[in-house]
Amino acid sequence: MSQPLSTLLAVDWGTSSLRGARLDAKGRVLEEKSLPRGIQTVAPGEFATVFVAAFGDWARASGSFCLISGMAGSKQGWVEAPYCPCPAGFDEVAARLTWIADTPPGLPDARIAIVPGLNCELPSAVPGLVSIPDVMRGEEVQILGAMQLSGLHDGVFVLPGTHNKWAQVSEGRVTGFRTFMTGEFYALLSRQSILSKTVDPDAPFDEAAFIRGVHQSHEGAGLLHNAFSARTLSLFSRMSASALASYLSGLIIGEEVRAQDLVKGSSVNLIGAPALTQRYAQVLALQGVQSRLFGAEATWAGLFALSRSLTRSTVSV
Amino acid sequence: MSQPLSTLLAVDWGTSSLRGARLDAKGRVLEEKSLPRGIQTVAPGEFATVFVAAFGDWARASGSFCLISGMAGSKQGWVEAPYCPCPAGFDEVAARLTWIADTPPGLPDARIAIVPGLNCELPSAVPGLVSIPDVMRGEEVQILGAMQLSGLHDGVFVLPGTHNKWAQVSEGRVTGFRTFMTGEFYALLSRQSILSKTVDPDAPFDEAAFIRGVHQSHEGAGLLHNAFSARTLSLFSRMSASALASYLSGLIIGEEVRAQDLVKGSSVNLIGAPALTQRYAQVLALQGVQSRLFGAEATWAGLFALSRSLTRSTVSV
Repeated sequence: MSQPLSTLLAVDWGTSSLRGARLDAKGRVLEEKSLPRGIQTVAPGEFATVFVAAFGDWARASGSFCLISGMAGSKQGWVEAPYCPCPAGFDEVAARLTWIADTPPGLPDARIAIVPGLNCELPSAVPGLVSIPDVMRGEEVQILGAMQLSGLHDGVFVLPGTHNKWAQVSEGRVTGFRTFMTGEFYALLSRQSILSKTVDPDAPFDEAAFIRGVHQSHEGAGLLHNAFSARTLSLFSRMSASALASYLSGLIIGEEVRAQDLVKGSSVNLIGAPALTQRYAQVLALQGVQSRLFGAEATWAGLFALSRSLTRSTVSV
Repeated sequence: MSQPLSTLLAVDWGTSSLRGARLDAKGRVLEEKSLPRGIQTVAPGEFATVFVAAFGDWARASGSFCLISGMAGSKQGWVEAPYCPCPAGFDEVAARLTWIADTPPGLPDARIAIVPGLNCELPSAVPGLVSIPDVMRGEEVQILGAMQLSGLHDGVFVLPGTHNKWAQVSEGRVTGFRTFMTGEFYALLSRQSILSKTVDPDAPFDEAAFIRGVHQSHEGAGLLHNAFSARTLSLFSRMSASALASYLSGLIIGEEVRAQDLVKGSSVNLIGAPALTQRYAQVLALQGVQSRLFGAEATWAGLFALSRSLTRSTVSV
């Protein structure tokens, strides 16, 4: 690949959505697109076809150079991209791209690579079990992007979502991280548990109820107990159905934040949709922890920075 | 009610099952019956009909005296029996029975009472919210029965199940209790979450994996994080699908037990199905806490003891 990379097609292909952006030679977003074609909607063998339908025109306009992050690199994705072990920064991730060998129909010049996720080993509390693995796919690109945007090379990076990641970054490399199933617990409890009879998960955000939930999460008995208070407060008409959803959200996010080893006066970096990162910033502020917020731009910045590191090395497809 | 109570029809009418026993004048079980007719299967207005179909013959043989505990006294049950506030023992519960005013078809002499559940107020961690309620329906009878069977009047009584209860008993009265949604969390995580892709909840119990889960629950980050290890251990083929269910059970029960304020060398009273109480006894033993185990007999003993207290007072229906 001697030809310089002028523009980039950056793609974030997750479980439930497919997002893409066309970036110019300076990384500025020219166009963005989001489709409900997450990998769970794509049959095996159909990824190339879905890719061409979504981005065929852009791929041609971008000189057919494309980087894809997210679950597209999982076993259920387009091509499995083996995890890159921590500690990992730009260099480690860029060195482990998985190139798509068969060009998609109608894109004979396409050079498409899948960015690997990261894996790390966490100390185990189990006698005889040395460590327990943890994994991310897609979040590593957002962390790299947030580093690029902020100039930060050290700190805690938090990515709220269905499976939240709390990552430690040191000297530009992710040294380790933990997943918290916060978003999934909230969905299960508010929509599938006994609480779903009284909680209205589609109610608008109620800040006071949310903060009450965060405070209650500090009660010592933990979420297994506190979650039931969303039932009893309703049984005794002490909280409305519309407030209960925010209360439950506060209980769960409060529990997650309480489990972190955060020092008062420190700061963390939150990456994600503003509606969610602002909630976390609020909970963290209650503990005296400051937050920097990053949005979707972190994904594009991360993929762009990775593409730049490719022009510096020589990549043969 | 001047007529002495000779035999008793004891009924435990829960959410998912309807169980009954005919007891002689000494409280011995003459016959037992269990039907899949929990209150969630009974349409409003149909409770009397279901009762007669299930127990009509026994009701006549028992002199038509019947005590019912459980969710039959809830808002969705036969007749709502208002909660009895803690502290509550035999006398407080017996004084608050709710009698069924309309005798069921074909049972003109029936005297049927519903035993109230208990409610208590727990200290709240929320500024401006004085307390948070907790409730039980049915477990109070099992606790009274276990006290009767053991002669104990003080201690911690634990009732594992979908919504576990940890109750404090002092001088024969339940002074307070906490609900833990342990059984429901296990069902949600093993059957409805991302973990359901790899966990086989119908696999036989794997004690070693269960104990691993209990140990891992002591890792500081809590269940929101630890639950994800059931995913990653499978991703990296470090635990089999059949072991994962027991591991997950250990993670959740371990988390619940860890949240209790238990002193090494103390003992607790476990009431419930042996398969479940034995798991708890195992987890408690790891913390140096001893257990006494009680089974279904506690329900019948509790209802029988309540019926005896009625012969001592004079109850007018």
